Amino acid sequence: MIPVDPQRFLNDLHELRRFGAAGVSKGVIRPAYSDPDIAARDWLAQKYRDAGLEARFDATGTVWGLADGPSLLVGSHSDSQPEGGWLDGALGVICGLELARAGQAAGVPISAVSFQDEEGRFGVTTGSRIWAGHTTLAEADTLTDSTGVTFAQARARMADRAGEPVDPARFTGFIECHIEQGPWLDEAGEAAGIVTDIVGIRDMRITFTGEQNHAGTTPMHRRRDALQGMLAFQALIAERFRNVVTPQTVWTTGHVDLHPGAHSIVPGRCTFSMQWRDGEGDRLARMEEIIRTAATEVAQARGLELQFSDMLGLEPVPMDPRFQEALASAAQVQAPGRWRRMQSGALHDAASVAAKMPVAMLFVPSINGISHAFEEDTAEADLTAGLNVLADAVARLAG
Amino acid sequence: MIPVDPQRFLNDLHELRRFGAAGVSKGVIRPAYSDPDIAARDWLAQKYRDAGLEARFDATGTVWGLADGPSLLVGSHSDSQPEGGWLDGALGVICGLELARAGQAAGVPISAVSFQDEEGRFGVTTGSRIWAGHTTLAEADTLTDSTGVTFAQARARMADRAGEPVDPARFTGFIECHIEQGPWLDEAGEAAGIVTDIVGIRDMRITFTGEQNHAGTTPMHRRRDALQGMLAFQALIAERFRNVVTPQTVWTTGHVDLHPGAHSIVPGRCTFSMQWRDGEGDRLARMEEIIRTAATEVAQARGLELQFSDMLGLEPVPMDPRFQEALASAAQVQAPGRWRRMQSGALHDAASVAAKMPVAMLFVPSINGISHAFEEDTAEADLTAGLNVLADAVARLAG
Repeated sequence: MIPVDPQRFLNDLHELRRFGAAGVSKGVIRPAYSDPDIAARDWLAQKYRDAGLEARFDATGTVWGLADGPSLLVGSHSDSQPEGGWLDGALGVICGLELARAGQAAGVPISAVSFQDEEGRFGVTTGSRIWAGHTTLAEADTLTDSTGVTFAQARARMADRAGEPVDPARFTGFIECHIEQGPWLDEAGEAAGIVTDIVGIRDMRITFTGEQNHAGTTPMHRRRDALQGMLAFQALIAERFRNVVTPQTVWTTGHVDLHPGAHSIVPGRCTFSMQWRDGEGDRLARMEEIIRTAATEVAQARGLELQFSDMLGLEPVPMDPRFQEALASAAQVQAPGRWRRMQSGALHDAASVAAKMPVAMLFVPSINGISHAFEEDTAEADLTAGLNVLADAVARLAG
Repeated sequence: MIPVDPQRFLNDLHELRRFGAAGVSKGVIRPAYSDPDIAARDWLAQKYRDAGLEARFDATGTVWGLADGPSLLVGSHSDSQPEGGWLDGALGVICGLELARAGQAAGVPISAVSFQDEEGRFGVTTGSRIWAGHTTLAEADTLTDSTGVTFAQARARMADRAGEPVDPARFTGFIECHIEQGPWLDEAGEAAGIVTDIVGIRDMRITFTGEQNHAGTTPMHRRRDALQGMLAFQALIAERFRNVVTPQTVWTTGHVDLHPGAHSIVPGRCTFSMQWRDGEGDRLARMEEIIRTAATEVAQARGLELQFSDMLGLEPVPMDPRFQEALASAAQVQAPGRWRRMQSGALHDAASVAAKMPVAMLFVPSINGISHAFEEDTAEADLTAGLNVLADAVARLAG
C-alpha cells in the first residue's frame, strides 16, 4: 500500500474548499474559468511542484502533476456546478495529489490531474473529451455557455499558463475517485462502490405543436392543447417502459417550455427535454423506440405536429476488469463486507479517458444521496476509507 | 331602426386598423398606452367631435363620445393584445361610433366609449373596472405590466387629455358588440349570438415542491419529481371533472414553470396556472373542490409539498333580460333563424359595467373561432349584420 497521509489529505481537501466557498454549508461556487476556479488550479499546480512533480497546464486549463516516466494517472476535476458541493470532483483531485505525493516518497510513479469543465459550462466533460480526442479544440472553441461566452474566450483567460500537450501514452491507466451522488451506499451503510460501467445517456428535446387559442372561448373538444399532448405522452411511456427497464434505469423530463405561457391562452407549443440512462445500449435503443412511437401516436390522436431534436448519445463505458479487480481486492481488505460493485448513473471524466487507456472508478457514499447542492457531504471516515482503498489498489496495480 | 351607414362603418373600422397595423394578415399591435393606442384614441375623439358628440377622456385614457342628456352607451375597447386581431374590441368601438353618429342625426341620444386596457396589460378590463367602481385608481396605479412599468406611469402618458369624470348615472344601459372568439356561430353558419351571461372565472397558481436531484444517480423509486406530481394531478382532475362539467365548461393550464429547468436535474419545483370558467357559480365551486382535493391527494401520495396561490374569482354576470329581448327581437328580423342565445366564455367590459346599469352583448361569428392572433377575421356581411341588429335593438330600447 502507498503510504498516504489521511490528515494531510483532509487538510488539502478543506483548503481547496476555500476557493469559491459559498458560505452555505460546505458548498462551493467554482464553475470552470471563474476566478476561484483559476486560483484553485494555480494552488494545485504549486502543490504538485511542492510534491516533486512537474506541474503543467494544457490549452484548456486542465492541470497535471506529472511523475517521470510511465505512470498511473489519478484525478478528477476541480471545477464545480454553479451551486456545487465541496467534494464533487475535488475529492478525486485531492486523492490524486495525495497518491502522487505519497508515490514520489515511495518511489512509485503516480501522476495527478484536474480536468477542466467537467461540469459542462460549455458541454459535457469538456476538458477530458478534448484531451482524449472525442472532439477537437477548434470544435470546442465555438461552444457557448448560457450567457453567450464562447469556450475560446473563456480558455483565453488561462492561455498564458499553457505548456506542451500531455501525451496520453505516458499513462498506464486512469483511476477516478468520486462521491456516488446517489443513495445506494449511504442507504446500505457501505463504504465503497467499485464501478462496473458508466451508463449510456440519450438526450433530446421533443416539441408538440397544436393551436394557440383563447382559454375562455375554445371548447375542450375543439382544443389542440400542446401541454395535454405532453401529459398523454408521459403517461404512455411510463406504462410502456415497465416491461423494459431495470431498477437502475432512469428517465427524466427536467425542462418544459410552454408557448405562449399565459394563464388565459391554450398553449400552442410545448417543448420538453427527454433524457434516459441505462448501462446497456440495447435497452437505451428499446426505450428510444418506445419514446418515438408514443410521441407519434399522441400527435396523431390529438392533431398535433411533432418534432424531435437531434439526439445526444453517449454509449455505456465499461470499466477495465483488471483495474476493477485491484479495487475490489483493496476494498475487501480496507472495508471488508462493506463495498459493492455498481453502475455509475452519472457521467465522469473516466468515460472520456477510457478511449485512451484502462480506467476504473471508486465511489464513496453521499449522505442522503445529495449532490449538485451546497448540502452535499460525506463522512470523514468514508473519505479516508476511500483514500486507503485507492492506495491499496494502486500498489497492487504497480506491483 | 337607427339609420346606420354600413359602408361608413366599414371604412372607419379599416381606418382604425391602420393604428398599429402588424403587416401580417389584418392583425394589429396596439396594446394599452402604446403610441398606436394613444393615436387611435385621439383619432376616435376627433370622430366623436365630428359627429356632434362631446369627446372626453378620463384619467385612465378611456375615451367617451357623449350625447346630451340621458343616453344609451354603446362601445368596447380599442387597445389590443400584444399580437392581436383587427376586430377584438375595435368592432364594438366602431359600432358605438356609428350608432352614436346615426343617433345624433335621428334625434336618438346614444353615447359611445372605448375603455382603456381591456386586454389586461395591467390587470383585467382595467379601465372599465375602475370606472364601474370595482377597484380604485389608487389601487390600480400600483399594478405593473410584465416589464415592470406601473399603471401610474403608463397612464401619465395621457394625463394631459383627462377631463371631468363621466357619471355612470347618465347612461340608461350599455350594449357591447364583440366577435365571438369561439367556433360556435361559425360552425353553425349563424350571424348573431345574444349573450345570456358572461361566465365566471377562477384562476390560481399551484406549486408542487419535491426534491431537486441528479437525473443520472437518483433511482426512480427515490424521486420526488415535482413535474410528475403535476402530471398525476392533471390526469386526476380530468377524470373527476367528467361528472361535473357541461360542454361549455373549460379548464386550462397555460403556464408551467419548472425549477431548475435543466435536462440533467430531477425538477424540484413545478408551479403552474389553473384556470377554469363556467356560467354557474356552483359548478365553479365544485370544480375548485375537486382541484384542491386532487392536488392534496397527489402531494400526500408522492411526498410533495403543496402550495395554492390566492385565487382570482370573477362571478358569472347575467345580461339584462329586457336588453336581451330587444337584441333577440332585432336578430329575428335582421337574421331570421340565424341567431342563438349563448354564453360568453371570455370576459368583457360589459361584465364590469353591469354593476352600474343594465348591460347586454351581441356576438358576431369568428372565422374558425380564431382570436388573439393576427389571423382573426369575420366576413363583412356578418359585420354589417351585427351593426343592423344593434341599430334595430337600440331603436326598440329607445322607443
